[in-house]
Amino acid sequence: MNSKPSESLLEDLDSLLGPRGFTRDPRDIEPWLTDWRGRYRGQSPALLSPANARDVQAIVSRCGAAGVAIVPQGGNTSMVGGATPPAHGGALILSLRRMNRIRSISSSDNVLTAEAGVILAHVHDAAVQARRRFPLSLAAKGSATVGGLVSTNAGGTQVLRFGPMRSLVLGIEAVLPDGSLYEGLSALRKDNRGYDLRELLIGAEGTLGVVTAASLRLVSAPGSRAVAWAGLPTPQVALDLLRDLERQIGEAIESFELVPANALALVLRHIPGARAPLVALHPWNVLIETVAPEGASDAAESLGGALGNSLEQGLATDAVVAASESQAEALWRLRESISEAERADGPALKHDISVPVSAMPQFIEAARHAVTERHDGARVIAFGHLGDGNVHFNVQAPRETDAAAWLTSEGPGVSSFIYDMVTAAGGSISAEHGIGQMKADEYRRTAPVTRLNVQHAIKAALDPRNIMNPGKLLVHGN
Amino acid sequence: MNSKPSESLLEDLDSLLGPRGFTRDPRDIEPWLTDWRGRYRGQSPALLSPANARDVQAIVSRCGAAGVAIVPQGGNTSMVGGATPPAHGGALILSLRRMNRIRSISSSDNVLTAEAGVILAHVHDAAVQARRRFPLSLAAKGSATVGGLVSTNAGGTQVLRFGPMRSLVLGIEAVLPDGSLYEGLSALRKDNRGYDLRELLIGAEGTLGVVTAASLRLVSAPGSRAVAWAGLPTPQVALDLLRDLERQIGEAIESFELVPANALALVLRHIPGARAPLVALHPWNVLIETVAPEGASDAAESLGGALGNSLEQGLATDAVVAASESQAEALWRLRESISEAERADGPALKHDISVPVSAMPQFIEAARHAVTERHDGARVIAFGHLGDGNVHFNVQAPRETDAAAWLTSEGPGVSSFIYDMVTAAGGSISAEHGIGQMKADEYRRTAPVTRLNVQHAIKAALDPRNIMNPGKLLVHGN
Repeated sequence: MNSKPSESLLEDLDSLLGPRGFTRDPRDIEPWLTDWRGRYRGQSPALLSPANARDVQAIVSRCGAAGVAIVPQGGNTSMVGGATPPAHGGALILSLRRMNRIRSISSSDNVLTAEAGVILAHVHDAAVQARRRFPLSLAAKGSATVGGLVSTNAGGTQVLRFGPMRSLVLGIEAVLPDGSLYEGLSALRKDNRGYDLRELLIGAEGTLGVVTAASLRLVSAPGSRAVAWAGLPTPQVALDLLRDLERQIGEAIESFELVPANALALVLRHIPGARAPLVALHPWNVLIETVAPEGASDAAESLGGALGNSLEQGLATDAVVAASESQAEALWRLRESISEAERADGPALKHDISVPVSAMPQFIEAARHAVTERHDGARVIAFGHLGDGNVHFNVQAPRETDAAAWLTSEGPGVSSFIYDMVTAAGGSISAEHGIGQMKADEYRRTAPVTRLNVQHAIKAALDPRNIMNPGKLLVHGN
Repeated sequence: MNSKPSESLLEDLDSLLGPRGFTRDPRDIEPWLTDWRGRYRGQSPALLSPANARDVQAIVSRCGAAGVAIVPQGGNTSMVGGATPPAHGGALILSLRRMNRIRSISSSDNVLTAEAGVILAHVHDAAVQARRRFPLSLAAKGSATVGGLVSTNAGGTQVLRFGPMRSLVLGIEAVLPDGSLYEGLSALRKDNRGYDLRELLIGAEGTLGVVTAASLRLVSAPGSRAVAWAGLPTPQVALDLLRDLERQIGEAIESFELVPANALALVLRHIPGARAPLVALHPWNVLIETVAPEGASDAAESLGGALGNSLEQGLATDAVVAASESQAEALWRLRESISEAERADGPALKHDISVPVSAMPQFIEAARHAVTERHDGARVIAFGHLGDGNVHFNVQAPRETDAAAWLTSEGPGVSSFIYDMVTAAGGSISAEHGIGQMKADEYRRTAPVTRLNVQHAIKAALDPRNIMNPGKLLVHGN
C-alpha cells in the first residue's frame, strides 16, 4: 500500500520545484484528473511539473522515501486511463509537459533527441526542417508527447513499414524508481551489453520509471507518395492483395488499412463532404499508401502499375489511385473519420486487438458471426491495420435497444467474450493502446501465468515500494 | 555459489533423457568444452541433449532444485566464450542441437518458426524454398543456431537495412529458470501488454532462461541485387557517400562496409586469387550492396546511377559496379577475407565496438592515432559496418616484436585503453558479439552503475539461484 503525501512532503516539493513546478490549486489540477475520453476520474492533492531530469530525480527520491505514489503524465491522451490518477487521491501527478525541448537533431545520424514533454507534431515539424521524416503518426499528434508515446509503445498508420515506437526509439533517458538516472540516450545502432533497459521501459506505462527524454530515429524525406483505394469481396482477398503488392513493390507500402462497407456507410452518412471513392459499393475496402524515395520513379505510377496487375489476377474488384494531393487527403479522411462517424451514430464497445496477420481475415469473420449469434442485432465494425494483424473490433448495440443501457448491461460480457476469442487465437487484447486501468482486470484474467509472474517479478525488483503508477498494467488478485 | 551435480542428479537426468539425450563419455563431451577460437576451456561431467521443450523444463527444474548450473549451447560459435562451461567442472552443458526442427513456415504471414537448434543456413534454405528471404547472415552461418543467434542478438552484414536479430524475432518460446515454459511464439506484429519478455531474452546470453524456439520474420525474395566498390579519401567521406546514396535510393541499401587500404593489402597478399577492384589504391574503400524488389528496375542500374551522381559531387574518388554475379562474389570475398588474411599475417587484438554513427569517422582516426602514439609501430585495422556505427577495431603488434609476447604483455592495457575511448564517446564495448566471459570484467569496469544495478536486479529476480549460465555477462566484484 502507498502512503498519502504528508504536508511536509508537499511543502518540500513546493520549495524544490517553485511556483512554475508545483501547484495545489484545484483549478490547475482539474484538467488532468480525467482521461480525455471521460471514462476515468481521479483525485490528486498536487500537480508537479519539473523543469528537468534532475527535478524528476528529486521528486522520485522524496516520494520513494515516503512511499507516495506518482502518476507520470504527458499529453493525457491514453485510451485506457493509463495517465489518470487513482480516485483515492493519494497519488501525485508528475507532468512532463514543461520538459518540451528538442535537445538535438542530426541529419547525419538521422537522430532527433527530444525531452519527454515534446508534442509529436513538433517532432514532425523539426524532422521536416532537417529534411527528414519521423515516420510515426496518430490522431492525437497535437497533444500526445514523446514520453507517453515511448511509455505506451504507440503505433499508428505507418507501423506496417516502420514498426511501432519500439522500432524508432534509439535511446532513452529515464529516472528509475530509486531516483537514479538511466542515461541511455546515446543512439547506438548496435549494442550487445546484456538486458536492454530501453526495451523494458518502452511500453511499461510508467510503471518502471519516468522517461525524461528519448532519441528517435529519423528516415529520409519522401520523394513522392501515392494513395489508393480498392474495393474487394473479403478480408482474405484484402490480405492476398497486400502480399501481391509486397511482391511487386516491396517495402514501399506504408499503410494498408481495412475499411468495411458498414464503416464507409457511417462515414458517408455522418461526415459532411465525404464521398464514396468508387462507383459501386464493395463489402470491404482497403486504403493503401506508398512512398517512393527522392529520385526514384513516381510513387503513384508504380502503385498504379502494381494495382493493375493485382486487379487482373482478381485480387480487387475495383481500385482508384488518387490523382492529386487533395484526392489523397480525401481518401485518408474517409479512413480517419470512422471513429467520429461511429460516435455520431451512437456509443460503441471498442476493442483494440491483434492476432497473427494471416489469421486475421478468418478471425474477423468468425468473431463477427459469434458476436451477432450471441447478441441478435448487435453491429460489428472491424477496421484498421490489416497488414499488422491489428483491427479495431467495435460493437454497437442493436438498433432497437437503448444503446447506453445495453452497453452497461452487456458490454463487459461482450468484451470478455471477444477477448477470449482473441486469446484462443494466440492474439493480444491490447495491440496498440496498452493496458492502463481499463484492461488491467481482463489482462490478469487472460494472460498466461508465466508471463504475469515474470512481469510481477520485474516490477517488484525495480520498484519494490510500488510508487510508479500503481494500479496500472499490473494489479494483484483480490 | 552453485552446487556440483550429485551422482543421483546425474542418474536422474540419464533416465529422463535416455542414451540419445545424456552422455558422460568424455569423448562425446570433449568437442564442446572449448570455444571455437580456442581461448577458453572448461570442464563438464555430462552433456545433456534434450529432444523437446518439455525435456528442457525437466532439466531446468531438477538443476534448479539442486542449485546446479546450466550452460546452454547451440553451435558453440560465440566470439566471447559465452557458451563454454566454467573450468571448475560443476556446470552441465545443455545442448540444443538435437532440437533442430523447423516447426512451420508461412509465406502469407512471412514467419518461420524454428527450434533453437536449427542452423542458420537451414533457415536461409527454408526461406528460399518458400520464395522468401531471412535477411540476417554471418560468417558462422553453417554452425550458428537459432537459439544462439537470439540469445546473442546477432548482427551481420544486413543490419543496416533489417536490423539485428532483435528486429527479426517475432516470438520466443523459452524455459525460464524456475522451469516454467514461456509460450510466446505467436507472431504478433503488435502487442502492448506490458514488459516484453521476448526483448529481455534476446541478447541475454542464456542467463535468464533457455530459448527453445523462435518465430522469425521473413521478407520478400529479392528481384535483383547489385554490389559496388568505391575508393575514397577518408571515413568521413564514406559516411557522406552513404547519406547521399540513402537520399537517392532510400532503404535499398543493405550493406555498407568500410575497408581500409591496409586491410585490402592484407587480403591481396594472403588470399589466393584476390584482385584489387580499382586501378589505383585508395586510403579507404567501401563495399555497397543494394537490393531491388521483384518487378522494380534493376538494382545495378539504379545503384550505378546514384553512384555516378555521388562521384560528380566528389563523394568518391573512383567506383565500380559488379557486372556479374561472379564479380559481386569476388567483391564480397575481399570484405569477408579480412579476418582470415589478418590471421595469416599474425595474431591481433580484436575489438567489436560501436559509437553513434556520425561520430565513427572521427573516432576511427582519433583512436588509431591514440593507439599508435601509445605503442609505436602498433598497426590498427578498422573495418566493417560503418553505416551501423560499428567497426572491428583490431590492433596488431609492431612488426619488429614477438607478436604473441607483445599481445600477452600489452594486450589487456591496449584493450582497456580502447574501451575507455569508446565509453567516453558514448559507445558500446560490445556492438555485436556480446559480453560472455571474455568481456565480463571490462563490462563491469566501464558500465554505468545504474545500468549494472538494473541488470543485476533483473537477474536476481528471475534466476534467484543463479543457475543459468553463471559467470557470463554479469559477474560480481571481487
